[in-house]
Amino acid sequence: MPYELHYWPMIQGRGEFVRLALEEAGADYIDVTRQDDEDGGIGPMLDRLSDPGNPRPPLAPPFLRDGDTVIGQSAAILLYLGPRLGLVGASERDRIWTHQLQLTIADAVDEAHDTHHPLGVGLYYANQKPEALRRAAEFRTERIPKFFGYFERVLAGNGGGRLVGADLSYADLSLFQLVDGLRYAFPKATAAALRPNANVARLHETVARRPRIAAYLASDRRIPFNEDGIFRRYPELDP
Amino acid sequence: MPYELHYWPMIQGRGEFVRLALEEAGADYIDVTRQDDEDGGIGPMLDRLSDPGNPRPPLAPPFLRDGDTVIGQSAAILLYLGPRLGLVGASERDRIWTHQLQLTIADAVDEAHDTHHPLGVGLYYANQKPEALRRAAEFRTERIPKFFGYFERVLAGNGGGRLVGADLSYADLSLFQLVDGLRYAFPKATAAALRPNANVARLHETVARRPRIAAYLASDRRIPFNEDGIFRRYPELDP
Repeated sequence: MPYELHYWPMIQGRGEFVRLALEEAGADYIDVTRQDDEDGGIGPMLDRLSDPGNPRPPLAPPFLRDGDTVIGQSAAILLYLGPRLGLVGASERDRIWTHQLQLTIADAVDEAHDTHHPLGVGLYYANQKPEALRRAAEFRTERIPKFFGYFERVLAGNGGGRLVGADLSYADLSLFQLVDGLRYAFPKATAAALRPNANVARLHETVARRPRIAAYLASDRRIPFNEDGIFRRYPELDP
Repeated sequence: MPYELHYWPMIQGRGEFVRLALEEAGADYIDVTRQDDEDGGIGPMLDRLSDPGNPRPPLAPPFLRDGDTVIGQSAAILLYLGPRLGLVGASERDRIWTHQLQLTIADAVDEAHDTHHPLGVGLYYANQKPEALRRAAEFRTERIPKFFGYFERVLAGNGGGRLVGADLSYADLSLFQLVDGLRYAFPKATAAALRPNANVARLHETVARRPRIAAYLASDRRIPFNEDGIFRRYPELDP
């Protein structure tokens, strides 16, 4: 039975970290809301979110359905999928470390989101633009370099090519996505921050060239970045 | 060998979720930075953070040391400690679900922090107070009720007393801490939000009465809430 991914159909968002893992593994999965037939759209997703028959409901998308197991929180989904897709080491030590890295990537993703919504999600960006300018300035000058410097240190400490051990893990895919999103949203600041962190830049390139990822990125399964997602290109935030 | 918890010594912060698990389990642990002798203070913690001999460094406190294993990210620490302390079920299904809940609690904690630092951590609260007023309003009226309503639904679906199964889990302890912090920071809004969510209110009370937790809360090991931590009482944010 294929995995079912449930997420908003018009954005990469937090669902993308799960999509990349499923795509890299060549897993059989359905991106439910993006199906063209009557099983698609957000209706079935919203029905599952509020399903009174599920005593273990996720709070929000993305969530994964695997038979009668429903899992929310992208990092928890990857914790579940990692061993099944061969995208994490076998030892507990490797699994916890990979997960720790994933949570740190998730922190960076949250902060990227907050640059355009510092006052919360209840207001449009246009209504919190002066605040976004201030928040984005700190993110560009302090936070992107801090996160990249950290991942550079981890990569360098592991031989340069992978975050954990010798094999690709879901954390490598997620770091690719973080860098890819930041390159879209903050092209100038990200280019500058990648320069002293060559292993981070190289990981982004090598993941993009992996056959299944390259095919995915070139397909219409990959939703283009846009200004409804987490990573938004507002030129005034990256002057 | 005792566990070592490394965290900022003057705040509960994200370290508190780990402390509560260690305390409930009666685990042998050292709260390293709070030791009075030369092994205490933040020096050893900062040394470990930048230790070039550790190829798997955490980005930031809190982190746990267990022999030669060092783990950062409070949710990852609890993922590691849960089975060792008897604070999570034995099945993979229970463990992933408990972790999913923990990550949702962590999201709420992040949002609580952002109420007083919407423009980022580089500015003092006093320098982002108008923005904090706006962000806190949404948090009080939309987000606290949403999170409490979600956990109420989960508790009710599980018989009312625990988040997962019949036994106490680290997620129950963390939900206690979330409620406790919100009661401190937003006493009026939190009291109002607890009223329709009786199981959440009851869980907070029953956890506080557990013998080891009650002893801990009454001890000087429990750092009082204060205006340097995540949960801060600024009366203007809870009018």
